[in-house]
Amino acid sequence: MFLELAWRGIAVLHTGRDPPETALRVKSALESVGVAAHVFPVAELGRVWSCYDGIVYVGAIGGIVRLLCPLLRDKELDPPVVAVDRSGRFFVPLLGGHWGANELASELAKLLGGVAVITTAVEHVGAVPPEELERIFLCRMERSARLRVAAALRDGAEVCVAGVSWAPPGYKLGEGCAVVVRRGHVCKEGEVCCRPVRLYVGFGATSSATVEDVVEAIKKALGDLGVSKVEAVASVKVLASEVGRALGVRAVVYTPEELRTDEYCASPPSPKALEALGVPGVAELAALTAAGPGGRLVYRKRVFGKVTVAVAAAP
Amino acid sequence: MFLELAWRGIAVLHTGRDPPETALRVKSALESVGVAAHVFPVAELGRVWSCYDGIVYVGAIGGIVRLLCPLLRDKELDPPVVAVDRSGRFFVPLLGGHWGANELASELAKLLGGVAVITTAVEHVGAVPPEELERIFLCRMERSARLRVAAALRDGAEVCVAGVSWAPPGYKLGEGCAVVVRRGHVCKEGEVCCRPVRLYVGFGATSSATVEDVVEAIKKALGDLGVSKVEAVASVKVLASEVGRALGVRAVVYTPEELRTDEYCASPPSPKALEALGVPGVAELAALTAAGPGGRLVYRKRVFGKVTVAVAAAP
Repeated sequence: MFLELAWRGIAVLHTGRDPPETALRVKSALESVGVAAHVFPVAELGRVWSCYDGIVYVGAIGGIVRLLCPLLRDKELDPPVVAVDRSGRFFVPLLGGHWGANELASELAKLLGGVAVITTAVEHVGAVPPEELERIFLCRMERSARLRVAAALRDGAEVCVAGVSWAPPGYKLGEGCAVVVRRGHVCKEGEVCCRPVRLYVGFGATSSATVEDVVEAIKKALGDLGVSKVEAVASVKVLASEVGRALGVRAVVYTPEELRTDEYCASPPSPKALEALGVPGVAELAALTAAGPGGRLVYRKRVFGKVTVAVAAAP
Repeated sequence: MFLELAWRGIAVLHTGRDPPETALRVKSALESVGVAAHVFPVAELGRVWSCYDGIVYVGAIGGIVRLLCPLLRDKELDPPVVAVDRSGRFFVPLLGGHWGANELASELAKLLGGVAVITTAVEHVGAVPPEELERIFLCRMERSARLRVAAALRDGAEVCVAGVSWAPPGYKLGEGCAVVVRRGHVCKEGEVCCRPVRLYVGFGATSSATVEDVVEAIKKALGDLGVSKVEAVASVKVLASEVGRALGVRAVVYTPEELRTDEYCASPPSPKALEALGVPGVAELAALTAAGPGGRLVYRKRVFGKVTVAVAAAP
């Protein structure tokens, strides 16, 4: 469940000069289930902190605790962090247990044959916590609303999700439950409102790509994310204007110089884009630039034939 | 090994109003092997931080990481911290793996039937790390010396301990090894010097206790610690002067008002001492007062017949 929706990918950190075998095994395992995984030395922890759906640290827990302490801000902002010992035996959610770290640890332990060391009290078996709903449905609830959902799950009450096309395990799709979580800007009285975040699509394309190719690719990416509405579509391609019209959204065309740079959060440079445009990549940087300062990637670039698509959220 | 020498005892912390069953089981298990265990709500974490040989936190790791971050100072000063999930399944060394947390987690897991989640690289099997030598032998080495010992152990070289009466597992007693760790103020060239900390004995006694009773009790306590030399003996008893003469050390006699108070590090108040002298206890507070500002308990009070003995170290 967690990895299936980890569109931003996972940062795998290691101590020492070269990544140990376990770091490479974690990377391969993630890639084998279609998740982007980038390996960094642990010195980059601060820079990758907000860039990925999760951080996997390969090494001793004592070391990572001292390094992550200065970065802690808030449960709602900090990424899920899982520590894995060098031999790959234990997967320990260190931070953000309810924000995905428990699931990330469990899924990695299953893929790699280790033990997930879950230490949160298991109040509700089988239901993803409300914090995860926000990631899954790209929306935000108030803290009090989150507590209300958690209490209902704990007490065994039925919780519905509305305004979405499917229900995660432990939830019922539709209305009529004791608690209804609605994805939307307008919610009925008594419902828990999960307000959609504002999304910006960025794309790159080969010179032979047509408007239809781009529109189709963007629709596939939005389908992956389970959303249909975005604020704007952005690119360095003049094609963007026509794509915007076809999708019925605002279009932004940047010059390569206008693109935001983001050495750590964006994917590694694409040699082609560097050569042709002098930028490390277009889709992610266009999405991030359109999302404005504080914007973050929610969907790492994905290639659909001639088109590359990425999605960023405004802060 | 760790618990056998945990003279200051272990603080067991818990969330919520009442200690969960696992916290009480940890306390009983510790007491069953002769280790003092005190249970506190987690709000007291900051106050008990420097008072015990180790801290065991019962609850989810994510919570304790956020709480301990502001307290971190230095590997050499921070206590070993072990997290245990509420159901008592996993014992996770979070801080100070090489400073006792790995051993504490392993010993607790054995006592209580759980899994010790050791995540440090196991470079040397069976040998206690050099940091532990300092605790065991009440001495301090330079950081560089510690690294030298660790490297020797890792490379499979023989390491001797000298100036002490026994060798911990993985070390050889005596001289003639590639690396010799000597407990002493004067070390030979090439040896690793572990300089003894300055120790202060405090005692309390019933009115019928004789000088011989006190001397015998102090010798037993020093025997537990494996040391013979102390700086001074301290009490509110005038008897202290004679005890000092018998032991050949300086004696300090305090009035009850002169005793340092230490609500968090000292043991819970003794009703007898409170009634008779108006202080929560004599042995520990006299030792701490004699050790001066920054002094810390290294041997929690222990009763030997009519006499109670505690030992503190100067900073």
